[in-house]
Amino acid sequence: MFTPFDYQMMSRAIELAKGGVFTTQPNPNVGCVITQGEQIVGEGFHARAGEPHAEVYALRMANEQARGATAYVTLEPCSHHGRTPPCAEGLINAKVAKVICAMQDPNPQVAGRGIQMLRDAGIEVELGLLEADAIVLNPGFIKRMTSGMPFVQLKMAASLDGQTALNNGQSQWITSAAARRDVQKFRAKAGGILSTSKTVIEDDASLTVRWDELPPSVQVNYPQHQLRQPVRVILDRQNQLHDGLKLYQHSGEVLVLGSEHTSLLNSNQTQFELADTLAYLAEHSQMNHLWVEAGATLARSLIQAQLVDEIILYLAPKIMGSDGRGLFGALGLSSMADTLELIIKDVRQVGPDIRIIAVPKIKDK
Amino acid sequence: MFTPFDYQMMSRAIELAKGGVFTTQPNPNVGCVITQGEQIVGEGFHARAGEPHAEVYALRMANEQARGATAYVTLEPCSHHGRTPPCAEGLINAKVAKVICAMQDPNPQVAGRGIQMLRDAGIEVELGLLEADAIVLNPGFIKRMTSGMPFVQLKMAASLDGQTALNNGQSQWITSAAARRDVQKFRAKAGGILSTSKTVIEDDASLTVRWDELPPSVQVNYPQHQLRQPVRVILDRQNQLHDGLKLYQHSGEVLVLGSEHTSLLNSNQTQFELADTLAYLAEHSQMNHLWVEAGATLARSLIQAQLVDEIILYLAPKIMGSDGRGLFGALGLSSMADTLELIIKDVRQVGPDIRIIAVPKIKDK
Repeated sequence: MFTPFDYQMMSRAIELAKGGVFTTQPNPNVGCVITQGEQIVGEGFHARAGEPHAEVYALRMANEQARGATAYVTLEPCSHHGRTPPCAEGLINAKVAKVICAMQDPNPQVAGRGIQMLRDAGIEVELGLLEADAIVLNPGFIKRMTSGMPFVQLKMAASLDGQTALNNGQSQWITSAAARRDVQKFRAKAGGILSTSKTVIEDDASLTVRWDELPPSVQVNYPQHQLRQPVRVILDRQNQLHDGLKLYQHSGEVLVLGSEHTSLLNSNQTQFELADTLAYLAEHSQMNHLWVEAGATLARSLIQAQLVDEIILYLAPKIMGSDGRGLFGALGLSSMADTLELIIKDVRQVGPDIRIIAVPKIKDK
Repeated sequence: MFTPFDYQMMSRAIELAKGGVFTTQPNPNVGCVITQGEQIVGEGFHARAGEPHAEVYALRMANEQARGATAYVTLEPCSHHGRTPPCAEGLINAKVAKVICAMQDPNPQVAGRGIQMLRDAGIEVELGLLEADAIVLNPGFIKRMTSGMPFVQLKMAASLDGQTALNNGQSQWITSAAARRDVQKFRAKAGGILSTSKTVIEDDASLTVRWDELPPSVQVNYPQHQLRQPVRVILDRQNQLHDGLKLYQHSGEVLVLGSEHTSLLNSNQTQFELADTLAYLAEHSQMNHLWVEAGATLARSLIQAQLVDEIILYLAPKIMGSDGRGLFGALGLSSMADTLELIIKDVRQVGPDIRIIAVPKIKDK
């Protein structure tokens, strides 16, 4: 039922949507193309929460030519009054003839209502064109809307033999400058960066996005003045953070989950409480996408609690020996059946290093 | 000076040479194409030591049409009487007009003498067409001829966090059936498989090539009745091997380097002695290509002695915890500057696993 032209236009809308990948948090990435016949008359994407949605930009550009046009949108147009008026209303007022959506909005406030509004106004609506590609645009937004939890990426770095540091703690630098630039790109996409006071203090880490260190391919599309700093979320149950840390010497929000959060994080943090922490971030900070950089203990706890969506593992071409510090610490396993299983999603070389993206297998609880 | 047709013909000769990759040991892989004008009149490759060389097959096929023809050979034609008469003589007798070689023979018994014989007989000779591709055909033969040492590939397998076994020794199976088939292919190409009595006894390993387990793409070109078993070389200083082992229940040669080899391997094996062992295998067993499957101790010793050409590391998508058995054991490093550095040559997915080929960086001694 979709024509090759339809596919081409939706592909274009998906490419446009990517223009907001570093800045739309907590909103989704959305792109829109408006056509008259086989002519593009309007284009737009959502750039930043509080600013107009993709459809608004495309309608503005199309102006009078929107009448009787076809609109391609990567996500169902919204039906509710948020910080901006509903886009479904905008499309109706502009008198477009047809709307093709890649996917339904997973936001329970929308969830089909936008499509219903359009149909009620006599607009023809089709759904599902390049849906898989549209889903990939918004893993965090979709996960938060459907489960109340953020999409969690756990970053780790080790030598080829799985060591994150020598026995004496030395670890700078295991991975290359190219890998560290790659990490900057992931940080820049995240809504928040989760770490612990232990890691922050040991490394005196700022955990910011440093524009200068972003890959040139990112810099070109993401000007320095638009730089958005993810919220840095630091687990600090024993209130060890202090003002002298680099963490506080940079702009950007720091959210410390310390001893005053006893209702959230008990003195002996269990897996249950980690899940609560993430749910809290999703609800109170509208956190779609959490990037975790921490030590073996938090990494292990998150994986064991099945809270990790992707492990991003950088392996440096070095042998450090098994007497260093291992990636996930001791697990005390006595049977191969108990190993934590993953699925390899992507493997590639990043500079001299290897980057592996692995997805934990879902276990029966 | 080479024409596109020349490149095409040498590429063809290189493809032909690969037909012998599992069987020519200790001889090199060589392919030959003979042309009259732009017509192929003869083709051949060296299949097995003691059997005719590539040029002989190609000349037989060309027969009378070899006169005035051009011969493309991936390696300089031999000039010495070995198990077969010199190929340079065969080309001269057939009255070919021109010979194009990809590379000079690194065998000190030849090393330009074949080319000289041809030129002395009035044949035009050109050298160096697709040389880099021809070198890749014979890493083992070239290394043995130029250094007196075999080309050494060290196979290792671990979880994503660098563990080769759980603390209790359980390790079956870390990697997948697909990875084990891949290992069979590497074994099949090797002249010898090096291991230790410890590994052989612990795993009751046969260390043979099992035709049934070769990848189908290999089976198709390597019929079961041609199967060649690499020599299994087992370091057994304390004479622990015994008749009941699977090692002895299969056809194929087993070379045990035990206590009677005290001149070669002293009671406390040092790096110097490992180098002697490999030199011994290169000289006495004409071993071009050694595939090593052993534990952390031998792996570490070989790497530290700079005897490893390639590490073939299979990583399974599993987390086993740092309290298992590490890939290379303890190294006692106290500075990141002392880590053993590698260069990643290839990374790919093999079934659900990852295969990394890494080359140790050469250190100043």
